Amino acid sequence: MNLKELARELNVSPSTISKAFRNSYDIRPETRDRILARASEVNYQPNAVASSLRTQKTKTIAVILPEIANNFFALAINGIEAIAQKQGYHVLIYITHEDTHKEVAFVNSLQGGRVDGVLISLSQGTQEFTHLKDLGRRGIPVVFFDRVLEDEAAARVTTNDMDAAYLATQHLIEEGCKRISHIYFYEYLSISQKRRSGYLKALSDKGLAVDKNLVVACTGNEEEDRQTIKELLRGKDRPDGIFCSVEKLALTAYEACHELALSIPEDVRIISFSNLPTAPLLAPSLSTITQPAYDMGAAAAGMLFRLLSKKAGQAQNETVVLDSKLVKRAST
Amino acid sequence: MNLKELARELNVSPSTISKAFRNSYDIRPETRDRILARASEVNYQPNAVASSLRTQKTKTIAVILPEIANNFFALAINGIEAIAQKQGYHVLIYITHEDTHKEVAFVNSLQGGRVDGVLISLSQGTQEFTHLKDLGRRGIPVVFFDRVLEDEAAARVTTNDMDAAYLATQHLIEEGCKRISHIYFYEYLSISQKRRSGYLKALSDKGLAVDKNLVVACTGNEEEDRQTIKELLRGKDRPDGIFCSVEKLALTAYEACHELALSIPEDVRIISFSNLPTAPLLAPSLSTITQPAYDMGAAAAGMLFRLLSKKAGQAQNETVVLDSKLVKRAST
Repeated sequence: MNLKELARELNVSPSTISKAFRNSYDIRPETRDRILARASEVNYQPNAVASSLRTQKTKTIAVILPEIANNFFALAINGIEAIAQKQGYHVLIYITHEDTHKEVAFVNSLQGGRVDGVLISLSQGTQEFTHLKDLGRRGIPVVFFDRVLEDEAAARVTTNDMDAAYLATQHLIEEGCKRISHIYFYEYLSISQKRRSGYLKALSDKGLAVDKNLVVACTGNEEEDRQTIKELLRGKDRPDGIFCSVEKLALTAYEACHELALSIPEDVRIISFSNLPTAPLLAPSLSTITQPAYDMGAAAAGMLFRLLSKKAGQAQNETVVLDSKLVKRAST
Repeated sequence: MNLKELARELNVSPSTISKAFRNSYDIRPETRDRILARASEVNYQPNAVASSLRTQKTKTIAVILPEIANNFFALAINGIEAIAQKQGYHVLIYITHEDTHKEVAFVNSLQGGRVDGVLISLSQGTQEFTHLKDLGRRGIPVVFFDRVLEDEAAARVTTNDMDAAYLATQHLIEEGCKRISHIYFYEYLSISQKRRSGYLKALSDKGLAVDKNLVVACTGNEEEDRQTIKELLRGKDRPDGIFCSVEKLALTAYEACHELALSIPEDVRIISFSNLPTAPLLAPSLSTITQPAYDMGAAAAGMLFRLLSKKAGQAQNETVVLDSKLVKRAST
């Protein structure tokens, strides 16, 4: 039995049958159950591929992101996926592991019409954006989140990285820190630069000099980074405060302090951007700048669906900025 | 320019061009770059939907799982995705949030040929499996991982839940615990039952009586569970050891102990199934049974691709069991 025959028999429209199969919010549960029961009896299934060719919609979006075993991105995916489910959309996930080459390959594999739109958080090394601009030219809208393209033409959702970094640094100063270190990854990402700017501005506003030896780039390799941080903490002019740009570095800094038998916060205060659910349970509990990860994912997905439905009022280049929250705990 | 014309011009086969676009490991980088450069010049892109209709392959698998902001599942996805990338496959992710109704809707939306195969970790309430058996009947193979279907006909990857639970309980007994509690979620899942069986068998082998008041079902609602655990710990016959079936419960138990001013491990020892990267940094560091999450994901994906390529020697109902590891830390 095909779609039209089933629709005629059940006295509903073909689009109602589609809604039943994608469990749309837009259909009464009784109607859905009646349709699915009869479809099951006659062994009817909508063909996804044929339907894509017919409607020119894949009902699929792609999410491209650097990693997934990371609290920020896991929460952001939950936000994205909640919106996609409401829209009856499927979600393809691509993990770049910070490899720009992979990012380009993934994006190119999407140029051929596998998805209707793309959400992306950039890999740390991405400095050239032709692959993403090509998507736009093919009519596949792209929305950036968190690690965004700083381009006037891009749609994006970010947090207030510079202001939040400023507040974190200011908090360390207010707690009495005089030599505050900033450790970070990902030189090229605009979020890294903004977080560094916020740190530098807070020092400058409070009349503290910048010591370049205290502004330390890490590599993302855990072993290397632990050595780097231990080096920093072993010096005679060691910092009395550390502001970490990403969660992973806070954990490495904790390990380095444990290994050197330095007390947090007595010897060194630590604060970090982090969405770690165990932050309150660490020894000592970790002060964080917590990003609205779920809301950022949901906002980015919402923006993408408005672009897809060509809603009036949705600009192609809108920037939405959601606020992060400073949470003071025992580590500062 | 279409596929055949481009292939003729570059003097390669059409399948080599496909490999270039999906960044296959099976093509030399120079060849790939030459193809992508020329394709870009002539604005050629393979059409994914048309190609699916032609080859009857979607080159896509689905992963259906209960949650993503969870260390076990995030690592398992990394394992799945590494294998899928090598095979040139795309990965759709569906998060059920433990809702069987959603699981059924997702699976039904896949009956129509959107994917070549499915990996699934069951929702806690799933007790009826028609939706999954239907996939098999349509020639879409299904591989279960972690939360599996205990059915002779199912392909699955698990860990040694019962033995690992036995070792965890035995460890608590060896550390002097006399009244050991087991707290758990998800009554219906076979992993819950196996973990409980391992706990009960260890008590019985060591000659300890089972106190039913110490075997406590939780709901997954954090607030409710904290109250339940506080209740358990407030009684005059409170346990001196707790074995938690899932990570989330260990964190709730830590919070409950903090609120009641009970010391871990002096007043109560705690051990839990967990893939928490911060387990060593908690106050105190948490003893864990750590599952080989990445390997379980990779093994499940490998099994699915062998089923898809109809490799000889890949049984439809194979069970692979990978071992978890007991990691003793300060909490016990």
